[in-house]
Amino acid sequence: MDNEQLHKLRHSAEHVMHQALKELFPQVHLAMGPATDEGFYNDFDPQSLKITEADFPKIEKRMQELIDLNLPITRIEVSETEARDLFKDNPYKLEWIDEFSQKGERLTVYWTGKPGEKNSMVDLCAGPHLNSTKEIGAFKLLSIAGAYWHGDEKNKMLTRIYGTAFTTKEELEKYLQDIENAKLYDHRKIGKELGLFVFSDLAGKGLPMLGPKGAAIKRELERFTVDEEIKRGYHHVSTPDLAKVDLYKTSGHYPYYKDTMYPVMKVDEEELILRPMTCPHHFMFFKSEHHSYRDLPCRIGEIAHQYRYEKSGELSGLVRLRMFCLADAHIIAAKDQAKQVIKEVLELIDFANEKFGMVKGTDYRFRLSLGDRKDTKKYYKDDAAWDYAEDILRQVLKELDAPYFEAKNEAAFYGPKIDIQVQKPGGKEETAFTVQYDFVMPTRFELTFTNKEGKEEQPIVIHRSSIGCLERTMAFLIEKFKGAFPVWLSPVQVRIIPITDKQLDYAKTIETTLKENNIRVEVDDKSETMQNKIRNAEAEHIPYMLILGGREAEAKTISLRARGEKNLGVMPTDEFLALIKADIAKKRQI
Amino acid sequence: MDNEQLHKLRHSAEHVMHQALKELFPQVHLAMGPATDEGFYNDFDPQSLKITEADFPKIEKRMQELIDLNLPITRIEVSETEARDLFKDNPYKLEWIDEFSQKGERLTVYWTGKPGEKNSMVDLCAGPHLNSTKEIGAFKLLSIAGAYWHGDEKNKMLTRIYGTAFTTKEELEKYLQDIENAKLYDHRKIGKELGLFVFSDLAGKGLPMLGPKGAAIKRELERFTVDEEIKRGYHHVSTPDLAKVDLYKTSGHYPYYKDTMYPVMKVDEEELILRPMTCPHHFMFFKSEHHSYRDLPCRIGEIAHQYRYEKSGELSGLVRLRMFCLADAHIIAAKDQAKQVIKEVLELIDFANEKFGMVKGTDYRFRLSLGDRKDTKKYYKDDAAWDYAEDILRQVLKELDAPYFEAKNEAAFYGPKIDIQVQKPGGKEETAFTVQYDFVMPTRFELTFTNKEGKEEQPIVIHRSSIGCLERTMAFLIEKFKGAFPVWLSPVQVRIIPITDKQLDYAKTIETTLKENNIRVEVDDKSETMQNKIRNAEAEHIPYMLILGGREAEAKTISLRARGEKNLGVMPTDEFLALIKADIAKKRQI
Repeated sequence: MDNEQLHKLRHSAEHVMHQALKELFPQVHLAMGPATDEGFYNDFDPQSLKITEADFPKIEKRMQELIDLNLPITRIEVSETEARDLFKDNPYKLEWIDEFSQKGERLTVYWTGKPGEKNSMVDLCAGPHLNSTKEIGAFKLLSIAGAYWHGDEKNKMLTRIYGTAFTTKEELEKYLQDIENAKLYDHRKIGKELGLFVFSDLAGKGLPMLGPKGAAIKRELERFTVDEEIKRGYHHVSTPDLAKVDLYKTSGHYPYYKDTMYPVMKVDEEELILRPMTCPHHFMFFKSEHHSYRDLPCRIGEIAHQYRYEKSGELSGLVRLRMFCLADAHIIAAKDQAKQVIKEVLELIDFANEKFGMVKGTDYRFRLSLGDRKDTKKYYKDDAAWDYAEDILRQVLKELDAPYFEAKNEAAFYGPKIDIQVQKPGGKEETAFTVQYDFVMPTRFELTFTNKEGKEEQPIVIHRSSIGCLERTMAFLIEKFKGAFPVWLSPVQVRIIPITDKQLDYAKTIETTLKENNIRVEVDDKSETMQNKIRNAEAEHIPYMLILGGREAEAKTISLRARGEKNLGVMPTDEFLALIKADIAKKRQI
Repeated sequence: MDNEQLHKLRHSAEHVMHQALKELFPQVHLAMGPATDEGFYNDFDPQSLKITEADFPKIEKRMQELIDLNLPITRIEVSETEARDLFKDNPYKLEWIDEFSQKGERLTVYWTGKPGEKNSMVDLCAGPHLNSTKEIGAFKLLSIAGAYWHGDEKNKMLTRIYGTAFTTKEELEKYLQDIENAKLYDHRKIGKELGLFVFSDLAGKGLPMLGPKGAAIKRELERFTVDEEIKRGYHHVSTPDLAKVDLYKTSGHYPYYKDTMYPVMKVDEEELILRPMTCPHHFMFFKSEHHSYRDLPCRIGEIAHQYRYEKSGELSGLVRLRMFCLADAHIIAAKDQAKQVIKEVLELIDFANEKFGMVKGTDYRFRLSLGDRKDTKKYYKDDAAWDYAEDILRQVLKELDAPYFEAKNEAAFYGPKIDIQVQKPGGKEETAFTVQYDFVMPTRFELTFTNKEGKEEQPIVIHRSSIGCLERTMAFLIEKFKGAFPVWLSPVQVRIIPITDKQLDYAKTIETTLKENNIRVEVDDKSETMQNKIRNAEAEHIPYMLILGGREAEAKTISLRARGEKNLGVMPTDEFLALIKADIAKKRQI
């Protein structure tokens, strides 16, 4: 089933919910109700009523009856007067009518059932819809929440019911199962269970505190990225979190970003602001020296703290934060190098994803996000530059034989981009990293280089993130591995389990050896049975357990166990050390 | 000569300068003039005159004459009326008289020369002074600057002349030479020459931008510290730069630190602030679980961005910044573990300093910074706790046979501390790192653990920095090594120098091999002679140069040269790789 058809189905399911609600609770005022990528929802003013999830069975029962009645759904154009008459009791609909009329838009209503007869309902709606209710294959109401009218907290708080619908019962069930799985492997849940991070209302919302285990993962991601990028010719810099607000005014970012920037801080005679991006700092480095074509492409990278003003309601685990660390870079290149540079970036992303155990085409794919030549408000006006840049990106994707799809109206204001779309365990797809082609900033910042002919030429800029926001990537990886990370990312790589206290000294000497080799190791010296200690290590998904009994202590060996009940036999410590070092160097999943 | 005597000498030299100025420029009003650790200075109101460094020879000549006259210096107590009469023409002195009189302080004046006779001068001054001008061995005027009356920018801008004085000419000359050396090796100068960092007025004052070379040093310092601390049992965490201002109100830090904190930012319904320290976040981690005596000492470390509101005038290179990265930690320990914990910290500091090539007793020493039982405003009142803590710190220093001295009235408000005082190339001593004993925060944060007897007990906290603020330590190291860093810290570790373009391909293969091993390497492919390429590498203090001619390319060898014109002969690449890896692992200076 294509997306358009599914959208119609869900919108019609929403109308059926509307009808059921109105029949069961006549005093409620339905305000609005769209279909979404996940299903549908409906905002209504319950007036004095209190409707809760406990009412769902009743509503669902009536919805099913309305579907079984196979009611026709009909579109009718109406005049403003007719519309006002139809919805005279509903202040929300009257407000919509005001708005549409002022804009001179045509008014349409959709009738479910025969107009005015029994089991019928009318809604002001632009559609489109199915032809009859019977075509709604399967539906379910999911949750209830509050939502401000028009999303504005100054307005009245309405009630919102979320639901979803599919063509078949099987599809619905798969979706519900996916949601359950997503909950089970939600990074917030696993993160808490494994003690990776905590949030605190006293410390501030959207500001995670990574404990030693979470910080170990972040550190590995950071070092991996920096080292790999340096190998690939990036210059890694370190620029400040704060800058004068004038920097962003000069760069031209301020008007576009000011709504998501933090308030300005007056310090002495300066006005400082937390940075939302690194572009201006990186461009200043480039401009601090004169460049010839031999210096290009110039790749300036940084693991940078960045700050975005997010509303509380939009914060979500490690995915949407008020500050984060971005694996950021800006590549300044001659126009004729653009293709090669973008190829290199996609190769780096493939390389990193492979180390994360992500399979191209299955775990992630590419989205070519295009502009809209007609929308000159959202996109910088330069048709030729857009055509050229979009074509370059398309060519790269084709030449790399990359799995991709095109999406209109998803570009940045300064040019088109390639988004790396990651498949989440719950079945959802999210943009993880992005590679952007920018033909606007080089003009704004007056970036130039001397070309082979000795003339000053304007370069282009590629904004890119190799592994994205570290916290967000951590969230992906937690869900992907369900907490059982490959050795290099495991917060604790080895748990040493002495069977009795007599092996404690021996355990400590092995701990020291491993620590000297920068292995993250712990000794379980609790007064518990070996079985319990193994069970705990398994629950924490620790990759390796070294079991030490009297025999091992005497022979200076270890008994090795890998997570998932894998007994790997007895060996000298050196042999184990070589094994785990290879796991780490190769970033192997065990 | 002891400090007190030198202080008298300098103060008397300042009086002689005062007298010379007044004789040469009768209309100036001398406002104030103290001796300092570095010499002396004098603030005066030049009225309509413009006095510049060009006047120094004239002033110095007259000063020398006054010294040669061997004028007596005499202290006399005076009444308020007598004082007002003596200084009736000088509004600044009259203001001092007002202030001292209001406080009921005794007024004293010092006469140079016989009172009222030729070549005499009187100043309102508490002393002490030398007995006669002849005892001033050698002096020099150094510089001239503006200074606000009482240091307040709302007041009039006065003129300040800096000078210094010593017992002997030799001491003076050594001091002047030290200043010249300090200028020569000033980290700001070397940093600019080697392209380590830049400052920009557009980006903001006190906010350095580390280029790839400066960032490489910072990264090495960070990784070294984190890895070494983890080996030593620290738990490294990652907490946010921003927190709710309530966190610092709850912790009790806010009133003590609010003057050096940035303004509060209102974000959605929260009030956020940039953090000036990590203590509250680290204590929250400790409190997030229950602890037994077996968990102590609990060492929580972090390389943390921290933010301090510094006035523009107080900013200085990488030493005094508006944001910085601190190698911070808090160790929560039972009271009876304090001694051992502090010992371990000092051992870590010794270890790190040794890797930086710093010799204990020569390059750095310890200062035991004590409180003042009478000053209950500056220090938390608990005499017994102060006595205990100061004694513990003293015992540790003695047991480690550490070179140390004691300094009164230098403690933190929550307890005494050990400061690590580093000798700078210019001869100055500065506090680099600090280890603080805190018996106040555990109460404020209600930190507890279950002791061996099963009872709740209050721990103590050690606040410590192992290698201090990374930027500041970089400044020390730049000056110490004069830009010629040990291999592990060198921004570029190897420069490959192909003699002609024919060896360029071979150079690239060696570059790839070295990069694969995380060596920071560059190929000099410029069209220059080998001699020039070597000269450039020497000027940049690059530790190793690999010279590649036809013979080397054919035999797959390299001709190795170390900086400082050291020819190390021809060898296979592998041999060089092993050599440089050992340098890095051992953190050797070559």
